[in-house]
Amino acid sequence: MTISVTETKLHLYRQQFPALANKTYFNYGGQGPMPKASMDAITQAQAYIQEIGPFGNAVGKWIGQEVKATRIAIASELTVQPETITITENVTVGCNIAMWGIEWQAGDHLLLSECEHHSVVAIAQEISRRYSVEVTTCPLMPTLNEGDPVAVIAQHLRPNTRLVVLSHILWNTGQVLPLDKIVEKCRDNNSLLLIDAAQSVGSLPLNLTELGVDFYAFTGHKWLCGPAGIGGLYVSPEIRTSLKPTFVGWRSIITDSQGMPVDWQPNGQCYEVATSDYPLYAGLREAIAIHQKWGTAEERYQQICRNSEYMWQRLRTLPDVHLLRTSPPESGLVSFQLTQSKPHSHPQLVNFLESQGLFIRIIANPNCVRACVHYFTLKSEIDQLVEGIREWLMANS
Amino acid sequence: MTISVTETKLHLYRQQFPALANKTYFNYGGQGPMPKASMDAITQAQAYIQEIGPFGNAVGKWIGQEVKATRIAIASELTVQPETITITENVTVGCNIAMWGIEWQAGDHLLLSECEHHSVVAIAQEISRRYSVEVTTCPLMPTLNEGDPVAVIAQHLRPNTRLVVLSHILWNTGQVLPLDKIVEKCRDNNSLLLIDAAQSVGSLPLNLTELGVDFYAFTGHKWLCGPAGIGGLYVSPEIRTSLKPTFVGWRSIITDSQGMPVDWQPNGQCYEVATSDYPLYAGLREAIAIHQKWGTAEERYQQICRNSEYMWQRLRTLPDVHLLRTSPPESGLVSFQLTQSKPHSHPQLVNFLESQGLFIRIIANPNCVRACVHYFTLKSEIDQLVEGIREWLMANS
Repeated sequence: MTISVTETKLHLYRQQFPALANKTYFNYGGQGPMPKASMDAITQAQAYIQEIGPFGNAVGKWIGQEVKATRIAIASELTVQPETITITENVTVGCNIAMWGIEWQAGDHLLLSECEHHSVVAIAQEISRRYSVEVTTCPLMPTLNEGDPVAVIAQHLRPNTRLVVLSHILWNTGQVLPLDKIVEKCRDNNSLLLIDAAQSVGSLPLNLTELGVDFYAFTGHKWLCGPAGIGGLYVSPEIRTSLKPTFVGWRSIITDSQGMPVDWQPNGQCYEVATSDYPLYAGLREAIAIHQKWGTAEERYQQICRNSEYMWQRLRTLPDVHLLRTSPPESGLVSFQLTQSKPHSHPQLVNFLESQGLFIRIIANPNCVRACVHYFTLKSEIDQLVEGIREWLMANS
Repeated sequence: MTISVTETKLHLYRQQFPALANKTYFNYGGQGPMPKASMDAITQAQAYIQEIGPFGNAVGKWIGQEVKATRIAIASELTVQPETITITENVTVGCNIAMWGIEWQAGDHLLLSECEHHSVVAIAQEISRRYSVEVTTCPLMPTLNEGDPVAVIAQHLRPNTRLVVLSHILWNTGQVLPLDKIVEKCRDNNSLLLIDAAQSVGSLPLNLTELGVDFYAFTGHKWLCGPAGIGGLYVSPEIRTSLKPTFVGWRSIITDSQGMPVDWQPNGQCYEVATSDYPLYAGLREAIAIHQKWGTAEERYQQICRNSEYMWQRLRTLPDVHLLRTSPPESGLVSFQLTQSKPHSHPQLVNFLESQGLFIRIIANPNCVRACVHYFTLKSEIDQLVEGIREWLMANS
């Protein structure tokens, strides 16, 4: 096939990401490839801390600036005020902060979808056990191709539903939930809404201020292509006054002249604990800057959708492959199953493909495999994946 | 002055730590200088993850090996089984895990010393508010030079004391608490004992298995000289069965074939949450290996004590300086105050010294400054610090 001018430009652009040099990558929903600039920024920050510190007045001031700059960079992707951002280690810590910070009463109800990540399910189970909270799930999987997820969620709300936890993009099927309508239903029911944004930050254009969501937990290491070990949580300013910090430390508090804690920090910092690997902050900012230079969040999302539609179309041509979506995906996640008595072969397929330099992953429920495309995915990569699957199918027919 | 053969060897040894090249450093209790080998290991691990991943089967297997090797390295410093180790972001997260994992009943009593770090005080305050637990403190500062801290602690235990939280080495005065006797008192009272080991891991020889402590929370970035962002928690095997995980995620759990959480991991991993900055793990292991190559934990501790005795002796020669200890310190922390109407000048002294390349810190309570020595501190560095303080005193007399 001929490579277009656009694809040639893209080849150059992709050279910023060392991980893309020696493989064909579709695990953006697991972890994004880090730009070389991020890796260098981390190494340089590590060295700079040693040069001016590692502990003292100068380095303390520098860390303060790094934290501030990082809150601003993250906030620019979510369209929120920087003060609303808590920096965390990962998306799951953000979910924990929101879920443990609610003053649960015995008998309260907590609603999840049946498509939530097992990390979130584990938190819900332990909260249920400790506080005698009832946890139920609403079935969103059947609404992937038809029906109305908002109606399903609304049907499962109860008068005592304190919190609803949903993903903006379901990690297993790639379904994008209509958050604006869900926010409305939850608000009408006086229920708080926590969004697991693992798959949406860095892939969807976002304006959380307009959206009016209460909590939005995310990570920098998936679609934003930042380093693993830094993520965040947005807490709306109205809700912050009532969401209590749980895991706390010197970063959470204001101290008096005797060094005693007298109040929480009056911003998202109140949920941060103690010393982190601050060099990662520069790494994440570099990654965000690279994406923003490429195009707006809307432009990046449109390109992701063009790429996932192409993948969806190409995968449809394969025998023995069943796409979960009956129409082109609305996100970069494309999930499919092997049919004809091969559904138990998903791990073998994934292993074979990785041995060929093609990276996708299995999902346990629904039993499927997931291939992700980013805005910088090449059509030729998608073609290679399709050929790789075809090869495996032929060898295993 | 003449430099001995030992000091010449030490100069060579210290070249492994870039931070020591351009300053005279006494903030080991704040953050230790990272060896170049640790910095390189982090950079290399970051690159390796991009080379074989960043997400897939091969990298997943590699991360599993890294986690295992890191638990083993940490366990070797604490003399415990690797399975008892939870890897955390810092010492404070370890304290949070222990303190929030107890099933508090209204009316329970929580005992701290008045010398605990404000991070721990903040946790205690929030637990007190949420669960109607009474928090009190026992005064250990008066036992720095005389009296018996064990007797003071024992006097403040109550029949309903569920948990005692103490530092092994008090971060403000450098006092080393006799943990073996304290463990006995707590056990006799059916009270759990959490140790804030921020200042002891990497500076004291430790055998936690023999000591019989319940929880021991530490960090890698102070006396161990590892990177900021990795620490840990020891939970004794007997206690782990009753200490519930609070902040949880995919690392905490075992899932069934449908990906649903069915149990906690049967080891310290049950308190770990989700994705971390795994390259740090190699950085910490390198730092531990360098110390262990230099000498045993006992040998390193003895050298720390020789250095702190020298500092204590030298500081005694200064007018207007009051050492908190009336006899040589038992740890690497040496705290002192300016006398003669200068106690409010501690920040100015610290700023002046940092401008001269001499790094010490202020402590709010008791109002003092703290200079730390490690086993690789030079006598000539201590001499420089003393001269720097003398210079400031003369300019401000």
